[in-house]
Amino acid sequence: MSLSSTIPSVLITRRELLAGLAAASVTSALTDLGFAQNDVSKLRIDAARLQQSLEGLSVYGRPSGGTFADGVSRVAYSDADIAGRKYAMELMRAAGLDPRIDTAGNILGWREGSDRSLKPILFGSHIDSVPSGGNFDGDVGSMSAIEVARTLKEHGIATRHPLQIAIWSNEESLTMGSRAAAGDLQPADLTKLYNGISLGDALRKIGGDPAKLAEARMATGSIHCYLELHIEQGGTLDKAGIPIGVVEGIVCIDEYEVEIHGFANHAGTTPMPERRNALLAAAKLIEAVQEIVTRDPGRQVGTVGHLEVLPNARNVVPGLVKHSIELRDLSPEKIARLGDEIQKRAQQIAQETKTDISMKKVEHDAPAVATPAIQSQIELAAASLGLKTMRLPSGAGHDAQVIAALGPMGMIFVPSVAGISHSPKELTRWPDCANGANVLLQTVLGMDRS
Amino acid sequence: MSLSSTIPSVLITRRELLAGLAAASVTSALTDLGFAQNDVSKLRIDAARLQQSLEGLSVYGRPSGGTFADGVSRVAYSDADIAGRKYAMELMRAAGLDPRIDTAGNILGWREGSDRSLKPILFGSHIDSVPSGGNFDGDVGSMSAIEVARTLKEHGIATRHPLQIAIWSNEESLTMGSRAAAGDLQPADLTKLYNGISLGDALRKIGGDPAKLAEARMATGSIHCYLELHIEQGGTLDKAGIPIGVVEGIVCIDEYEVEIHGFANHAGTTPMPERRNALLAAAKLIEAVQEIVTRDPGRQVGTVGHLEVLPNARNVVPGLVKHSIELRDLSPEKIARLGDEIQKRAQQIAQETKTDISMKKVEHDAPAVATPAIQSQIELAAASLGLKTMRLPSGAGHDAQVIAALGPMGMIFVPSVAGISHSPKELTRWPDCANGANVLLQTVLGMDRS
Repeated sequence: MSLSSTIPSVLITRRELLAGLAAASVTSALTDLGFAQNDVSKLRIDAARLQQSLEGLSVYGRPSGGTFADGVSRVAYSDADIAGRKYAMELMRAAGLDPRIDTAGNILGWREGSDRSLKPILFGSHIDSVPSGGNFDGDVGSMSAIEVARTLKEHGIATRHPLQIAIWSNEESLTMGSRAAAGDLQPADLTKLYNGISLGDALRKIGGDPAKLAEARMATGSIHCYLELHIEQGGTLDKAGIPIGVVEGIVCIDEYEVEIHGFANHAGTTPMPERRNALLAAAKLIEAVQEIVTRDPGRQVGTVGHLEVLPNARNVVPGLVKHSIELRDLSPEKIARLGDEIQKRAQQIAQETKTDISMKKVEHDAPAVATPAIQSQIELAAASLGLKTMRLPSGAGHDAQVIAALGPMGMIFVPSVAGISHSPKELTRWPDCANGANVLLQTVLGMDRS
Repeated sequence: MSLSSTIPSVLITRRELLAGLAAASVTSALTDLGFAQNDVSKLRIDAARLQQSLEGLSVYGRPSGGTFADGVSRVAYSDADIAGRKYAMELMRAAGLDPRIDTAGNILGWREGSDRSLKPILFGSHIDSVPSGGNFDGDVGSMSAIEVARTLKEHGIATRHPLQIAIWSNEESLTMGSRAAAGDLQPADLTKLYNGISLGDALRKIGGDPAKLAEARMATGSIHCYLELHIEQGGTLDKAGIPIGVVEGIVCIDEYEVEIHGFANHAGTTPMPERRNALLAAAKLIEAVQEIVTRDPGRQVGTVGHLEVLPNARNVVPGLVKHSIELRDLSPEKIARLGDEIQKRAQQIAQETKTDISMKKVEHDAPAVATPAIQSQIELAAASLGLKTMRLPSGAGHDAQVIAALGPMGMIFVPSVAGISHSPKELTRWPDCANGANVLLQTVLGMDRS
């Protein structure tokens, strides 16, 4: 029975799944290959080889004369990206995968399953980075996916479901490759400029074909499930000392643009009571965002990350301030309510400061809830490895969020030291990388049984 | 007795000056010219001609196709500045002044007095503007100074003291001309770039001679006094409905640069309690500046006018904020104390927000106190015209602040509608311009008696 026919199945309780694992019968394929029932749960990836793969990949985009600790700039479509993709494809070949590049530039590997009637288990991540990024964001999930396939090959294990390994193109700025796979990319997107050239031309550089982009589309319901291992990028796991995060879902985002109109005037000649100071109003609003977002318990976050002052001269009372407000949580209702409260407070601040404040919602990204049965499956896999887990939302966007439109989805997080990410200082310790890869392996095997 | 020998004479009380006026004997020169004692106090400038001069000047630097209401861009050394200066020199010739350009580009007119042993009464202002400025800042004082001379010529009145009318060069960005006159300009200043060319080359464009800059220096103690009529640029007089401001002095300025170091991190993945948000710290500090500066009564002002956020992306918790803090008051002790309080609060905020805050004083402009006896003389002049006065500090810098180093100094303010300045919307009503010019005339005559 394929999982896709039982999912979304919130009816499978954790207790049922645990019972299922205890009673798990080895698939006929595994038995055929002589891998004993008890051995499957003891199967482990090669931690040293995984580290080697990550170190090998880190060379592509490394600053000149730098070391692993100096991180990478492997921006999508750059020479470093192209070289890194070539390296990843070599590893895929060594893992018995026969990689191909689809028209959206995604690298896809395939491993046959024993039952041709079953849908593939899709898993992977990305290897492009932000400028001056680290060696773990995307890389851990990509190299681990290949390592899982290689481990299965090495031990001669066939799964019932076929396995499809994906290295999605251009995750960092657009989740471009996964969006193409999910049919969520418009032809107009290809005319947009990306680092000076059109996205279409950029796509050609990595072996894609913008004219045939539709061919990269995967049909909804065509996958058994999608799994992604990724670094947390936040500090929750690291702080709690827990090696495995079970992602509850990828948060939704409400993005607002605020414009505060005061009146620019001479800072020497304008008495304090006469001022209509847009920056003072902004300061009050920034504090209000902090207070409103942190007042209630929960993992919601609110950020004013972008702010501009006009005329921005030390001797002129600021006349205009523009700034962003970004709210994130798994619950769209919660961030809508927080937005309303901030909006109300903004109008009070406008009155107090004699300014005009407009606050407009400019973007809403819907949440992607991880399939509850897969969350439980990841917990079972971790438990079988003796690893503690914690459920948590993903505050960052991921390819998994996009691919969730195609079928059941689950994500595994490993700790980011001090929560640092998108920085050369980004670090996930080697044992944590190996733990993540082993949980991915056991989750793939677990999902294969369903 | 020349005023300069009794000044700085805080010993001359207002009562004494009033008594002096009541008993004032007409100068022999005035009597010689047959202008009766009682008539001198009734002498008035030609308000229509003053308006005409201001309107005539407003053409130079006016936006193409615009009107008087569109203001001017008569930036120092520009073609508009050069044309405006030519126009001003024509008016000076019509007023019987024989204008010359000194080596610092100042336009100086001279009118002989009856007593060759006396030092000149120096008065004037500037005609350069900020980009997109108004038609009153500098212009009112410059055109009124010429109008005063013309009025005296028209009525055949000789003063005891010679009169020197100055239109200082490049007030707006550097108080360049007045600083050269006060010996406060270094040769190195001339190598600085100004709108793409060196200040030395710029100076040549308006008829100055950078190689002989020292010749523009006026000796300390060589003037009887310096008087300047100027628009207030703040809204105090306009709000109070008072036509004449008597400047107590030009405030001192303490300029600080603040750097707030937090930690830039992913806005989606970094929980609120884990953040070290530099912009949140800045918001608290901006509010603290407002609160500390406005807590005590007085006219002190404090401004955060310039602020930069890094990396300034809507999805990144701000890691670094740099901003200015500017404090102004007549009392250097008061702003030093306010600076200390803000410094203390900054360190508390750094602790609360887990950031590092450095706040460094980068500039201190000393105050220039207007000579008390001249303040009283201006009040007498206004009273003789039936005009109410108010004493107030000048929050903006002026040539008068620089020339105060050479001898006694006084400034007259006229109202700026709604306190707007450095803007095409800058407005001083025609009757207020005329009142200012008449007070200047009567103050010149009053100072001539001392």
